[in-house]
Amino acid sequence: MGFECAKNNAILSKLATNEEHGENSPYFDGWKAYDNDPFHPLKNPNGVIQMGLAENQLCFDLIEEWIKRNPKASICSNEGIKSFKAIANFQDYHGLPEFRRAIAKFMEKTRGGRVRFDPERVVMAGGATGANESIIFCLADPGDAFLVPSPYYPAFNRDLRWRTGVQLIPIHCESSNNFQITAKAVKEAYENAQKSNIKVKGLILTNPSNPLGTTLDKHTLKSLLNFTNQHNLHLVCDEIYAATVFDMPQFVSIAEILEDNEMSHCNKDLVHIVYSLSKDMGLPGFRIGIIYSFNDAVVSCARKMSSFGLVSTQTQHFLAAMLNDEKFVVNYLAESARRLANRHKHFTNGLEEVGITCLKNNAGLFCWMDLRKLLRDSTFDSEMSLWRVIINDVKLNVSPGSSFDCQEPGWFRVCFANMDDGTVDIALARIRRFVGVKKSGDESNAMEKKQQWKKNNLRLSFSKRMYDESVLSPLSSPIPHSPLVR
Amino acid sequence: MGFECAKNNAILSKLATNEEHGENSPYFDGWKAYDNDPFHPLKNPNGVIQMGLAENQLCFDLIEEWIKRNPKASICSNEGIKSFKAIANFQDYHGLPEFRRAIAKFMEKTRGGRVRFDPERVVMAGGATGANESIIFCLADPGDAFLVPSPYYPAFNRDLRWRTGVQLIPIHCESSNNFQITAKAVKEAYENAQKSNIKVKGLILTNPSNPLGTTLDKHTLKSLLNFTNQHNLHLVCDEIYAATVFDMPQFVSIAEILEDNEMSHCNKDLVHIVYSLSKDMGLPGFRIGIIYSFNDAVVSCARKMSSFGLVSTQTQHFLAAMLNDEKFVVNYLAESARRLANRHKHFTNGLEEVGITCLKNNAGLFCWMDLRKLLRDSTFDSEMSLWRVIINDVKLNVSPGSSFDCQEPGWFRVCFANMDDGTVDIALARIRRFVGVKKSGDESNAMEKKQQWKKNNLRLSFSKRMYDESVLSPLSSPIPHSPLVR
Repeated sequence: MGFECAKNNAILSKLATNEEHGENSPYFDGWKAYDNDPFHPLKNPNGVIQMGLAENQLCFDLIEEWIKRNPKASICSNEGIKSFKAIANFQDYHGLPEFRRAIAKFMEKTRGGRVRFDPERVVMAGGATGANESIIFCLADPGDAFLVPSPYYPAFNRDLRWRTGVQLIPIHCESSNNFQITAKAVKEAYENAQKSNIKVKGLILTNPSNPLGTTLDKHTLKSLLNFTNQHNLHLVCDEIYAATVFDMPQFVSIAEILEDNEMSHCNKDLVHIVYSLSKDMGLPGFRIGIIYSFNDAVVSCARKMSSFGLVSTQTQHFLAAMLNDEKFVVNYLAESARRLANRHKHFTNGLEEVGITCLKNNAGLFCWMDLRKLLRDSTFDSEMSLWRVIINDVKLNVSPGSSFDCQEPGWFRVCFANMDDGTVDIALARIRRFVGVKKSGDESNAMEKKQQWKKNNLRLSFSKRMYDESVLSPLSSPIPHSPLVR
Repeated sequence: MGFECAKNNAILSKLATNEEHGENSPYFDGWKAYDNDPFHPLKNPNGVIQMGLAENQLCFDLIEEWIKRNPKASICSNEGIKSFKAIANFQDYHGLPEFRRAIAKFMEKTRGGRVRFDPERVVMAGGATGANESIIFCLADPGDAFLVPSPYYPAFNRDLRWRTGVQLIPIHCESSNNFQITAKAVKEAYENAQKSNIKVKGLILTNPSNPLGTTLDKHTLKSLLNFTNQHNLHLVCDEIYAATVFDMPQFVSIAEILEDNEMSHCNKDLVHIVYSLSKDMGLPGFRIGIIYSFNDAVVSCARKMSSFGLVSTQTQHFLAAMLNDEKFVVNYLAESARRLANRHKHFTNGLEEVGITCLKNNAGLFCWMDLRKLLRDSTFDSEMSLWRVIINDVKLNVSPGSSFDCQEPGWFRVCFANMDDGTVDIALARIRRFVGVKKSGDESNAMEKKQQWKKNNLRLSFSKRMYDESVLSPLSSPIPHSPLVR
């Protein structure tokens, strides 16, 4: 428009807060590399395979079969249309009672039936994204901080911080003890914050972990609950991967820990669960975010906030029918775990055959792959260089550890549940070829490649907070695309 | 729990910010009166008739017929299931391209085809509630203020202020000139804010107006645009009632004004539209909120914020199919306007027969009813007393003007499109009987009633900001219920 508009500076500064290094980041180009050249088995067999998306695509057939048997669950079908008016017109922020019941029951099933969830405490939000933001809005004021074990989900930087003004303080976990959360690291992070006069309001746990794919054991959970309780901190447990546990040890929810006799001294009012169906049922498009709090005031406050991100009643109605079908749910959860276990085994065995190991994991839709041996040197610049080779030459879009605030270069998250068997095998073949080339000692070739990276005009600088998923979606792209890391 | 928890005070204070007089408000009891005794033609013919909900229930038959002809539009039907996986898995915050195209086309149709909307500027949000909050988050910082002509939609106090920390400054409109927005009142509100060192960021217009049901004429729109442009203020136009215009003059969108040659000097970057399908299509449960901005940076910022309140892709897919059916849309809009006009005429004629007049209106799902003559005296206490009689004795749940920040006691918003013909007639009969009693001069009876109100142990105090819709939903109610004012 060519107008001078001082007020627009405010908007641009808001955008900048969100984007930080944003679309100038080296990842953005990597992302474009995928967007411009996506793999297709027939149309583009040499394209980039997307292994950066934590999507659960292994069990759509089960859901589709259920739909065929239950057309009445859709209010937009001839069979279900009698409910259209009442459902389309329903906008109470408590949600459909049958939906809340179904969610509570599903949460019980995904936690092995060892704990009860009260439908009256189930609060809706717009996906886990909205749920995460809302719980922070409920618990904290701008400037307050939450501790979060790192590596952690990159979009926490947007979801938890952007509009709330809250800070995140990482609790650094290390490969030397398999990235476990130690009491020492928690204490250090908390005390450092105190020394800096930062008001710590709570701790956020992702269990099962994204990106590690591991579950927290009872001992660690109890120790963390004791710590937060002792310091009067909130404990927010993001359990959105609960049903992706495919191997022993079984998943332990914070809800179970709260019922343990040993923990009866703990203040339940400080404990909150974030849940979702995006991962466990593979339905990210449906935007089911849940806050389940043991604190009445938080339930009430979050419920009022849910007006900003209610779930479409069309979707509530459909899911209520499906998730209240106990036989379906039991079978779905068992079959989904079985398929994830098989896929995980097949993929990690393939990696092991070429000498690549992953952190041992029993959950999630991904592995935490150790490529430290392939780095030129132990720096994040090297990690970025390797990442560029993987995306541009090996043609796999994986996510570098730095995007998860991992403090050790050389770790990569690789997703394995967003593709079919054939694509997994092609990905494994590409890795095999790549590692073969690396190992064959074709030094001249390797040197040539190194030179090529250096000539690359892209800055390989590193910023720990720049890999927000929202940063990575080119606005101008005409085709729908997905963020790098989910 | 019995625990002392200092941190919980923060949550309680947040709740208090939202609730203000909240569940202790006299309205809460009125609301309970409806919830405990809802009208049903057979089961509870003497129950309270809900006339406080701006719902559009007159055209569900047209939508249902379309669904029967188009079962493929549902991904949860046998006919549409082939799209299930792709749609359920889609979570791009740009939304389905066909959905944005459909929304842009629908917005054009509801504005008489006199202006084009660019699908690339259509940004999703969680209902108008989420859209309103997001646009404020984009444009303002905590402490900043927006001017808003009063009477205005009560939930603005929550949607625009609660989590953003922004203030609303009313521009008072008066019955003496039919509640028109005068240049003088705008200037006064702006200058008073300046004097108080409040940073005014913009002006929010609701056109067509809720609660007035009137549309703004070109002259007023141009004058307001000139004012905001001159002071470098944002102009946010809430046009969620665009398609409820049922009589002349026709609706004029701010988008049309921007294209007027006379206004070419204006900075388009300062203009933004909020839209929704909750009122125009009667689909509040589907949570379709839209931000349409003429400012690229706002589009980009709002799009990133839409992650907190995306529309379910199940719903996007369904609406894309329906709203891209041009023949259906043209017929729906014409028929909906015709039915609203008939209902409005029938209802206002009924009121006129007993001497009750309304502000002349050509839009909306309600009338702005003038009951000043029925007040004991011209105070808000009297308005509350009359409101209590109307809900408890006449058994109609209408909304008092004070809840809309109206400065003159005696006005009430009465919704007429959330019920069938028979219920309207029963409501009219009750009003006729009530006014008859009032007029019959049965003074002893009237006196008796007055005493009864005074004995009532409920405080009838008045606060202009307490009628947030969220305040009015009893948390403990086992049945789904809706807020008092929408």
